[in-house]
Amino acid sequence: MTFALKLDAIITKHNSLLCVGLDSNIEKLPQEFKTQEHPQFAFNKYIIDQTHDLVCAYKPNSAFYEACGANGVAELKMTCDYIRENHPEIAIVLDAKRGDIGNTNEGYVKFAFSYLGADAITLHPYLGKEALQPFLDQTEKGCIILCKTSNPGSGEFQNIRCHSREGGNLEIPDRVGDDKRESGDVTKLYHTVASNIAKNWNTNGNCMLVVGATYPKELAEIRAIAGDMTFLVPGIGAQGGDLKATLVAGLNSAKKGIIINAGRSIIFSENPKEEAEKLRDEINEFRS
Amino acid sequence: MTFALKLDAIITKHNSLLCVGLDSNIEKLPQEFKTQEHPQFAFNKYIIDQTHDLVCAYKPNSAFYEACGANGVAELKMTCDYIRENHPEIAIVLDAKRGDIGNTNEGYVKFAFSYLGADAITLHPYLGKEALQPFLDQTEKGCIILCKTSNPGSGEFQNIRCHSREGGNLEIPDRVGDDKRESGDVTKLYHTVASNIAKNWNTNGNCMLVVGATYPKELAEIRAIAGDMTFLVPGIGAQGGDLKATLVAGLNSAKKGIIINAGRSIIFSENPKEEAEKLRDEINEFRS
Repeated sequence: MTFALKLDAIITKHNSLLCVGLDSNIEKLPQEFKTQEHPQFAFNKYIIDQTHDLVCAYKPNSAFYEACGANGVAELKMTCDYIRENHPEIAIVLDAKRGDIGNTNEGYVKFAFSYLGADAITLHPYLGKEALQPFLDQTEKGCIILCKTSNPGSGEFQNIRCHSREGGNLEIPDRVGDDKRESGDVTKLYHTVASNIAKNWNTNGNCMLVVGATYPKELAEIRAIAGDMTFLVPGIGAQGGDLKATLVAGLNSAKKGIIINAGRSIIFSENPKEEAEKLRDEINEFRS
Repeated sequence: MTFALKLDAIITKHNSLLCVGLDSNIEKLPQEFKTQEHPQFAFNKYIIDQTHDLVCAYKPNSAFYEACGANGVAELKMTCDYIRENHPEIAIVLDAKRGDIGNTNEGYVKFAFSYLGADAITLHPYLGKEALQPFLDQTEKGCIILCKTSNPGSGEFQNIRCHSREGGNLEIPDRVGDDKRESGDVTKLYHTVASNIAKNWNTNGNCMLVVGATYPKELAEIRAIAGDMTFLVPGIGAQGGDLKATLVAGLNSAKKGIIINAGRSIIFSENPKEEAEKLRDEINEFRS
């Protein structure tokens, strides 16, 4: 089953667009987990047990596991194995933000899909489609490519105004507005990234985009460019993105098409189950 | 000691701009290593023992170790430990091409510098300086940022013509040539990346750029933008970059400023020591 179908099925079954980010920073774990043999896995197991009927996906960020070296990577694998064995319908998104030249990406493909058994991975677009082909060739797996990221300084390069002809056949639809159209075909880099991915990269139907909830205006622009493509949307919760603005801007024509990720605000809360349920329900309220 | 000083000292001591890429793909290892308990480490130890007096740096690419999961990461650490313990003057560049939002990059900082003990790491620029600050704050460590990558499709986004005002205070020097200057301040994305890093990111003097040997014209342009900054230059060897053109375009005013990386063409050769020596000497011939 393709990643898109798997995601669609669990979204329907759990009536949820919520992804819980397993950003299990070992320094921030509650004391009772820190003293266990596999602290990150034990904590993740607790979070998964609390939230598995409320989510469509889990998104462990590789950085928090790599920080603990080989042991951390082993606990990341234990986490992915636990999800697959106990909740095989839930999607596993490895947030690793990888991207190397083609030959080398084969190693990351093995890490994400053969070793961890993830369903999707996040990727940097900077090296272009040709470099990322080993990921794009995984027809059953998702390639979730950074487009407009949630951090305050994401505009430094992503918002650079550029001439679209160099980047493919960009057509910014009317919905984007005239302020993006100065000088005829001038647009911004994240528009070109979205356009190229939607039009040229997605021949296997396995591409998604990362668009931060902290930029709802840009999210609406990217929705207009990318059709009904699904977006992974971080930035709700600890980063302060506005949920309603995000959903208004980001939902596709089927009232789906965005996966809302929340990490710290759920996993480090007093009651992860309650926080996850509350956010899932808030999302659904705006969808209907 | 800062990374820049460490690199400078070993370049002088070994009279070498050569970096050997420890791209120790387990599938490509000679049979006698595959059967050992720690095959990637055993192979790397052999390569290091053969070449340590010929290089200024080793560059293991994390992808080839992650492909083997936690065991591979442990062998990557064994490799870094071996270099540090036996050849502490040689620089260790972790080729990991990371880049996440600020909070998360702390995890990668720990992986690269605390766990592995690397001296430098390669990074994606796409999220901007603000996101990469946890790396830039490591004053003793090197931040080697992708600028113009060696792969055939690197132009998809990197060569997009853009309006430089959005990306900082870009001034392309005369040396770049008039074909880059259509429409007054129009330039290409990799120019803006180089300019921002040289002018705004490098306050701790710990930034370097990745520029592929497969693009000598672009290398010359980036040299003109970035002053005497050191570049890590992959693409010689298996990828077919021309050594002389690379050196003419890339050497700085001190006849240094580039680190030539070769991986597969050395480590998988019949005689790695001979290949490394030959390449080091060829580089030095052009320098003098």
